[in-house]
Amino acid sequence: MPDIAAVKAALAAQRIETPSWGYGNSGTRFKVFAQQGVPRDPYEKLDDAARVHAYTGVAPKVSLHIPWDRVDDYAALAAYAKERGVELGAINSNTFQDDAYRLGSVCHPDPAVRRRAVRHLLDCVDIMDATGSADLKLWFADGTNYPGQDDVTARQERLAESLAEVYARLGDDQRMLLEYKFFEPAFYTTDVPDWGTAYAHCLKLGPRARVVVDTGHHAPGTNVEFIVALLLREGRLGGFDFNSRFYADDDLMAGAADPFQLFRIMHEVVRNGGLAPAAGIAFMLDQCHNVEAKVPAVIRSVCNVQEATAKALLVDADALAAAQRDGDVLAAHAVLMDAYDTDVRPLLRALREERGLDPDPVAAYLRSGRQERIAAERAGGDQAGWGA
Amino acid sequence: MPDIAAVKAALAAQRIETPSWGYGNSGTRFKVFAQQGVPRDPYEKLDDAARVHAYTGVAPKVSLHIPWDRVDDYAALAAYAKERGVELGAINSNTFQDDAYRLGSVCHPDPAVRRRAVRHLLDCVDIMDATGSADLKLWFADGTNYPGQDDVTARQERLAESLAEVYARLGDDQRMLLEYKFFEPAFYTTDVPDWGTAYAHCLKLGPRARVVVDTGHHAPGTNVEFIVALLLREGRLGGFDFNSRFYADDDLMAGAADPFQLFRIMHEVVRNGGLAPAAGIAFMLDQCHNVEAKVPAVIRSVCNVQEATAKALLVDADALAAAQRDGDVLAAHAVLMDAYDTDVRPLLRALREERGLDPDPVAAYLRSGRQERIAAERAGGDQAGWGA
Amino acid sequence: MPDIAAVKAALAAQRIETPSWGYGNSGTRFKVFAQQGVPRDPYEKLDDAARVHAYTGVAPKVSLHIPWDRVDDYAALAAYAKERGVELGAINSNTFQDDAYRLGSVCHPDPAVRRRAVRHLLDCVDIMDATGSADLKLWFADGTNYPGQDDVTARQERLAESLAEVYARLGDDQRMLLEYKFFEPAFYTTDVPDWGTAYAHCLKLGPRARVVVDTGHHAPGTNVEFIVALLLREGRLGGFDFNSRFYADDDLMAGAADPFQLFRIMHEVVRNGGLAPAAGIAFMLDQCHNVEAKVPAVIRSVCNVQEATAKALLVDADALAAAQRDGDVLAAHAVLMDAYDTDVRPLLRALREERGLDPDPVAAYLRSGRQERIAAERAGGDQAGWGA
Amino acid sequence: MPDIAAVKAALAAQRIETPSWGYGNSGTRFKVFAQQGVPRDPYEKLDDAARVHAYTGVAPKVSLHIPWDRVDDYAALAAYAKERGVELGAINSNTFQDDAYRLGSVCHPDPAVRRRAVRHLLDCVDIMDATGSADLKLWFADGTNYPGQDDVTARQERLAESLAEVYARLGDDQRMLLEYKFFEPAFYTTDVPDWGTAYAHCLKLGPRARVVVDTGHHAPGTNVEFIVALLLREGRLGGFDFNSRFYADDDLMAGAADPFQLFRIMHEVVRNGGLAPAAGIAFMLDQCHNVEAKVPAVIRSVCNVQEATAKALLVDADALAAAQRDGDVLAAHAVLMDAYDTDVRPLLRALREERGLDPDPVAAYLRSGRQERIAAERAGGDQAGWGA
Repeated sequence: MPDIAAVKAALAAQRIETPSWGYGNSGTRFKVFAQQGVPRDPYEKLDDAARVHAYTGVAPKVSLHIPWDRVDDYAALAAYAKERGVELGAINSNTFQDDAYRLGSVCHPDPAVRRRAVRHLLDCVDIMDATGSADLKLWFADGTNYPGQDDVTARQERLAESLAEVYARLGDDQRMLLEYKFFEPAFYTTDVPDWGTAYAHCLKLGPRARVVVDTGHHAPGTNVEFIVALLLREGRLGGFDFNSRFYADDDLMAGAADPFQLFRIMHEVVRNGGLAPAAGIAFMLDQCHNVEAKVPAVIRSVCNVQEATAKALLVDADALAAAQRDGDVLAAHAVLMDAYDTDVRPLLRALREERGLDPDPVAAYLRSGRQERIAAERAGGDQAGWGA
Repeated sequence: MPDIAAVKAALAAQRIETPSWGYGNSGTRFKVFAQQGVPRDPYEKLDDAARVHAYTGVAPKVSLHIPWDRVDDYAALAAYAKERGVELGAINSNTFQDDAYRLGSVCHPDPAVRRRAVRHLLDCVDIMDATGSADLKLWFADGTNYPGQDDVTARQERLAESLAEVYARLGDDQRMLLEYKFFEPAFYTTDVPDWGTAYAHCLKLGPRARVVVDTGHHAPGTNVEFIVALLLREGRLGGFDFNSRFYADDDLMAGAADPFQLFRIMHEVVRNGGLAPAAGIAFMLDQCHNVEAKVPAVIRSVCNVQEATAKALLVDADALAAAQRDGDVLAAHAVLMDAYDTDVRPLLRALREERGLDPDPVAAYLRSGRQERIAAERAGGDQAGWGA
Repeated sequence: MPDIAAVKAALAAQRIETPSWGYGNSGTRFKVFAQQGVPRDPYEKLDDAARVHAYTGVAPKVSLHIPWDRVDDYAALAAYAKERGVELGAINSNTFQDDAYRLGSVCHPDPAVRRRAVRHLLDCVDIMDATGSADLKLWFADGTNYPGQDDVTARQERLAESLAEVYARLGDDQRMLLEYKFFEPAFYTTDVPDWGTAYAHCLKLGPRARVVVDTGHHAPGTNVEFIVALLLREGRLGGFDFNSRFYADDDLMAGAADPFQLFRIMHEVVRNGGLAPAAGIAFMLDQCHNVEAKVPAVIRSVCNVQEATAKALLVDADALAAAQRDGDVLAAHAVLMDAYDTDVRPLLRALREERGLDPDPVAAYLRSGRQERIAAERAGGDQAGWGA
Repeated sequence: MPDIAAVKAALAAQRIETPSWGYGNSGTRFKVFAQQGVPRDPYEKLDDAARVHAYTGVAPKVSLHIPWDRVDDYAALAAYAKERGVELGAINSNTFQDDAYRLGSVCHPDPAVRRRAVRHLLDCVDIMDATGSADLKLWFADGTNYPGQDDVTARQERLAESLAEVYARLGDDQRMLLEYKFFEPAFYTTDVPDWGTAYAHCLKLGPRARVVVDTGHHAPGTNVEFIVALLLREGRLGGFDFNSRFYADDDLMAGAADPFQLFRIMHEVVRNGGLAPAAGIAFMLDQCHNVEAKVPAVIRSVCNVQEATAKALLVDADALAAAQRDGDVLAAHAVLMDAYDTDVRPLLRALREERGLDPDPVAAYLRSGRQERIAAERAGGDQAGWGA
């Protein structure tokens, strides 16, 4: 049976990175509903992220999205974060919101557009140098909408060339995390549609290129934890963009749509050594809080990842291995389910209290009155969103 | 074997309705790419639609979307359309872009919001009275994103009540067309997610309530033509929102993603008498031309629906029935495929020439120089899009 | 907050029906793996089912499948069941394993085949009269594999006619439960592919025709609990075939693939009064234990349904309604999740002990040595399977 | 514009391999419907395959499945094939129908079972030596049904080890073709579920290990032609198992469910040089004719692949490249669609007549009276099927 002290230690050591854009407005193509108290600039986003960390104790890092989080002085931004108790995490590039990118960015048929996109990626590495961020996270909206629109193979060549140029620019302590996505915004081909494509590119780039698994970026029915196990085995898993989905890339709160899947993913992470800091797995959120309050939604998501991790740590590995070895299907399944069926909330409440935190982070945040405060204070100005 | 003259007559009699919003800008949640020459108001949209009809000869109707096409004088708008050779078609309501609709419209838990939504629907009927439109097309973005967020059954009650009030307001020659959609923008429950739900509501409303089939609004793998056949058998098919998709509600040009499916749909329409005017089936497009030129894309889509219809009309119904009766799987399948494999473009070219049209509508439009003209003329002002 | 005594009472009153064929061999088109100790006749299946009830206390009914469970004297079979503490439940027809049914049964183009199928269904009603079964459960494998193979509308007519004849034969206390299925074994059209089709037929048949929801019979992504809520609202939910799936109709143990979905389904059942005996909802299992031991797998499945039910009963309905009324998305979601995150195994263990049962039914069964005993005793003879 | 003589030459040079098991009985888990005239042994299967080649002129190879096609003397079987004008193609292994394989074969937790499976694969290489077959085609039914049942990573290790042993045994002119499959018969994890997994294993094995794309083995919505283009670019596409599907691995006739997809696949093949013999792409069918007559269904499938190939050859590559370079979405799409919309049946009829064949292979076969002859002659004996 797992040692509870060890489980707690592992949970206390876990680091979950929250996305700056999760604090801003977001929506669907039909409507972005603005909310009260939404940050107006990267500094206010860091304020929000700092509260999430203050209440959960496990979210000390914040991913940035460029240009949405563009500032004049990134060192100052990093210092601001540090003062508030958090630090800047992965730098996310954006090559999909300029008018030039209608037909793609790094895969665009026009070399001038590709150049512009690569230059943006190189800028992002400059920003990493300034912020001390270790990871360049790349997601490309590139693809086509109609059969015949462009040439699949030619686009792969352009992609490979662009990535190689950016990879060559990285410092020794910097990594490239390549994200794949099944579809959207492209509706016929997507240039990095699956883990296999991302993996093939990473292999050619070098050891510091790794694949990011966004849990919402798969075809219906895809066994995501299988991919996680495979990439860990290959040493090519760079991290996660956690969120949840019932249909497509719904970007709901992690653990909200399929908590059992999140548990199975964390089980593969634990089983394959992915929780150890040396494994270099970045546990990031990438979510949109379209209809729910944003800060509490991020806190809830962090807690959901924690709960899934706690359950995964509670799996009796010896009993599981024994039942698997014996080919006892029901017994092996039961060992896993015993951990999943456990209510780990008391354990996490105890852990938080030991660390001087409120046992219920969402309730504590809501009680604090901060939400009303920022709703009042953050009047005027332009609320942050995907476009800014 | 089908009689070619009869086939041509049926094709010449077909009416395909184009959507005013298809001429405006559209995109995904990631980006709306503006295009040159996009209409700035409903009048310019009608100008574009009129060109589509001028070149194809089968697109004399234009669907409006309220409030995107709001004008002060709808009778004047109708007169303007008529001058240009087209007429106003279905009125599409919009209960998803006000801030009040964050948690729904006609299904919202707050009666004040429901009232507002119903009032909008009643306004739409007023507009129908002014424009002479016969169909009120209702699509609701209502739904929930999280399990527990709201009560499924209560929302159904609210929906039924709202629909009943609007149905009661319809004139004797007016119909309510209720559209269903699998998901988006709601990501957990959608209040009218499938044809069964729409059908059940229509049954209770009365004979002038019918179901609209949007070809992109189904779960992966759904046999859409089966639904079409069923609804025709029940007398409850009101019409189509044609478009095509590879993944979700991609809203690509009709016939671009799966031309064989479009043919199979039109085969069921033809087989079940849906092409006859008395059947009252509205053949509408509902598409987004995110990356391609809009007017030629609409022309192409109209031609694609025509081609699918032509192939469906070429099915040798007697031979098919005989093979089906004999249980000869391969022979029956072959009869259908013979029609599908036929290149009907020569037939359609001939038909167009007989009717005094250019045999190749897209090429003729492009040659006309109009696209360059509107690109120049429509400078300044606010381009039409989903928000306006 | 829910009253624990009331929760326990509801759980004690629940009745879960197990399928006779779940005790026999099953598999995929690739291979049926025989297991030791599998029943050789309907009597031995009842022996197994009786043990499931003995250990769980909530599985007193057994569904039969005709002709797999054909015996000479059904009254004797019913008496045998009663002696062992169980009773005969729904009668499941089989119109897919005769050579005549290659192109369908009640929808077959040949009236002689349809007659044969209807006659079988009428035989099943005779059996119901003999066994005292109240429910005729109909699932049709009918459909087509190729576009054009047969006529969708004509098949619907034949289906309606066949069902009407059988419905007319039912006694006043007998019901027809019509099951739908997305696909398999037909691969192009299925004649009852979705709840809407089943519902439309039931409406025409009469009040004793109801829809059965098999949890594995939907398109990917379908919101099953929404359908459950709708059918309960319409008074047309007849019951469930519980099982679970990751991909298609995988027929895994209920609750094994998506325990959260099973909870959400039971939440809609509880919320909409479906747990009350007067609602007439049959909670049946329909599973295949291809690789795992059968009797313990059925016990586990029964327990999984119980656990989902217990969690659904623990939902704080008042708090949920209040949060929903307030439009507080996160609070409403949290109320539901609080119930789901609760470990209900202690509650169920306590309930079992109060009722004189072993707190852990699977463990108790395995300890009993019965599995070894039947493996030894049931040597020789033909093991039961789908073909017999 | 493509040169018609070159198109014809390419079509005449194409080689489509038919599967021996396609001539035998097959079905679903619900029922295998026996047909008249089905072969009783591998020799009769070759007789059928020889007729398919005789009528189409492009199907000179026959895939074998071991043990279904086990004979005492494989050299004699090869000689028999040669006499009839065909030759033996890929050897397909079978590690899913022994009772030992309940929990897997090369991934089984028990080393003794893995040994047995590897020994079978080595036997298949011996058979290749005897028949002169160049390709060992491997599909593994390995996987698990329940979370926790076995260890994903450990199974990958066992798989890698088993494949390495078999790869080492291959001769210099022999290849290993590794097939992936999304699901079925395993319902939770499949050990080679996607092209990425197959590709990763092939990379480690060596240059003669390649991936096979079965067109029915993907998640819903997967862009298969993208995978084809990628594997061709990587030099790792070994060949195809053509068939078609609406839902899962339906194994319908190639081109029957989505002829446009088949065309898009062949377009990528042509575009990326895959039609050249030097590319080493094996164009194989892998289908089940559950409800339709088998030999004519295979002929029809061969013709469908030919038609898709003809259309792909008709794509105006220069015009396409120019439109793609210009970013003209509609023009590029139109170039592709022009080829697809062409009725290529006259071209193929002409080609066949030039080669001394009947222009309509299915009709010619049916007219020949052979089907009635084999129905009469092949009475008695055990019909071939998946079990034998």
